[in-house]
Amino acid sequence: MNWNDGRMKLPKYADVCAAAERLTGYAVRTPLLESPWLNERTGARLLIKAEPLQRTGSFKFRGAFNCISQIESAVRARGVVAYSSGNHAQAVAAVAKLHDIPATIVMPHDAPAVKVAGTRRHGADIVRYDRTGENREAIAERIAEENGATLVRPFEDFNVIAGQGTVGLEIAAECRVRRIAPDFVVVPASGGGLMAGCALAISAEMPEAALYTAEPCGYDDHARSFAAGTRQQVKDRGVASLCDALLSPEPGERTFAINHRRVRGGVTADDDAVLRAMAAAFHHLKLVIEPGGAAALAAVLNGELEITGKTVLVVASGGNVDPDVFGRALEHASDA
Amino acid sequence: MNWNDGRMKLPKYADVCAAAERLTGYAVRTPLLESPWLNERTGARLLIKAEPLQRTGSFKFRGAFNCISQIESAVRARGVVAYSSGNHAQAVAAVAKLHDIPATIVMPHDAPAVKVAGTRRHGADIVRYDRTGENREAIAERIAEENGATLVRPFEDFNVIAGQGTVGLEIAAECRVRRIAPDFVVVPASGGGLMAGCALAISAEMPEAALYTAEPCGYDDHARSFAAGTRQQVKDRGVASLCDALLSPEPGERTFAINHRRVRGGVTADDDAVLRAMAAAFHHLKLVIEPGGAAALAAVLNGELEITGKTVLVVASGGNVDPDVFGRALEHASDA
Repeated sequence: MNWNDGRMKLPKYADVCAAAERLTGYAVRTPLLESPWLNERTGARLLIKAEPLQRTGSFKFRGAFNCISQIESAVRARGVVAYSSGNHAQAVAAVAKLHDIPATIVMPHDAPAVKVAGTRRHGADIVRYDRTGENREAIAERIAEENGATLVRPFEDFNVIAGQGTVGLEIAAECRVRRIAPDFVVVPASGGGLMAGCALAISAEMPEAALYTAEPCGYDDHARSFAAGTRQQVKDRGVASLCDALLSPEPGERTFAINHRRVRGGVTADDDAVLRAMAAAFHHLKLVIEPGGAAALAAVLNGELEITGKTVLVVASGGNVDPDVFGRALEHASDA
Repeated sequence: MNWNDGRMKLPKYADVCAAAERLTGYAVRTPLLESPWLNERTGARLLIKAEPLQRTGSFKFRGAFNCISQIESAVRARGVVAYSSGNHAQAVAAVAKLHDIPATIVMPHDAPAVKVAGTRRHGADIVRYDRTGENREAIAERIAEENGATLVRPFEDFNVIAGQGTVGLEIAAECRVRRIAPDFVVVPASGGGLMAGCALAISAEMPEAALYTAEPCGYDDHARSFAAGTRQQVKDRGVASLCDALLSPEPGERTFAINHRRVRGGVTADDDAVLRAMAAAFHHLKLVIEPGGAAALAAVLNGELEITGKTVLVVASGGNVDPDVFGRALEHASDA
């Protein structure tokens, strides 16, 4: 199968299962964490899928690995290109290093320092751009063309979506073993690739669970798209948000085609709720979560869903956060 | 079996296995974490057993559960008493709550706020004492006698040691599945209960691994005891250390009887090395580790063992740290 074939060919449950086989021994099977205190505080049972513990500190390793490892080797040898504020960047760089091929990453000037450093550490070339004025996709496509390299799209790629879906597959497998039946599964969304992959796995294995995306306030394009039934754009891309990983302007075409039939709706969280969720994870889970990675936990802790007496699966999608931002979260009270 | 029988009766490998059965479904089977970057930096393969992800934020839940769940129920109903700077405290309080029995914890005035709050949150009564002037053991024994409650000792108890040993059992099991053969296993030590339990499991399952304790500088009673062949005391108990969890004045009698025949030696780490290890865990593992819990990682990253080309299993024993201390760790560079 060619990873660029047919822009609207959609991955299926079987593609997620195939990705899981491919990832065995490479990706971390991350744990579901639980805190009696968070349960008591919410009156629900919360289980947190800890993707900050994934290689490169976010779920993005899964999709990047599933995609790049399927590129035909002569083509792959010419390298890969990606655009990303940081998590997809580090993932693509790390997978490229595993395959010993060059990687070029197009990153915005305002990407968190820790993500730029992580990407560079994996040996990638970094090209910076201005997030508000330049088209990162066009820059990446030009570089790919010049080098004969393959562009690894962050969420619209068939194999990337299938790879991210292994998060959902692991959730379903662990719930089965532990006899847990989640009422809700809440997943941070930017372009919607993680949600789409999880939706494929979870709608197949736990169809009774209600799926929700979580987004930063002001970047609630998924929530509004689900409500409208068609893809909606972020209204004002200038709105400030700590959630650097969740600033895509609209749901992906492919991801929305998967999500709109499977996802119940979308919830949101503001920066303050996100910082409080990060503090709660520090105190009660001992897990480092980045702002965007904490969006689902933030929305849940902030009461955006009626969860009393319910079992809620929350995906914490990444942990690549600069120390100064984490320090701001630590200023919040321990009972956050 | 009575948990107070024969002060020098020593647990064996089979007791650790029995503890593991008892803990199934209650304790978290914590993951082994790995960072390609830490591997590259040390020239070794490091695997970090992530006990901050354990219930109550440290390995202490294991021993407390294994001990308290075996107390005869009529006796147990009268409650439990413990003395602890915080991790054993929270563990005993949490297990008491699970059994719906009262718990009284004797804690020093200088215990970290997060540990006092955690203990109180589980519903325990807290009795404070002066760590330099009062005998916490005598205070706890008096309370136990007055209430007819059972004293749960932090490291000298047969069943507590067996419970902590499940850390080692899980390490061995995961290494077997992943075909990892550790050359070193490094474990933080205060009274030596975690090391003793792990030594029982690991010397049985992976006898070729060299075991080392890790202690704060100035509190190297295990290291000196191993060298001397007899239990040595801390020379100056007034020495300041961030590692509040590792300030026991000497190895336990029972733990030393187990450890001195199985443990190769002891390494140490100063506060600065500990803070740098905590920063490294924040950046590269996304794991919150408290100072005492980071002692083994700190010693290894600081070059206290010759590990080039070796596989090193490092136990991170707990993550209950006050935000201000964690903030100090975050001030260290990301390449720590």
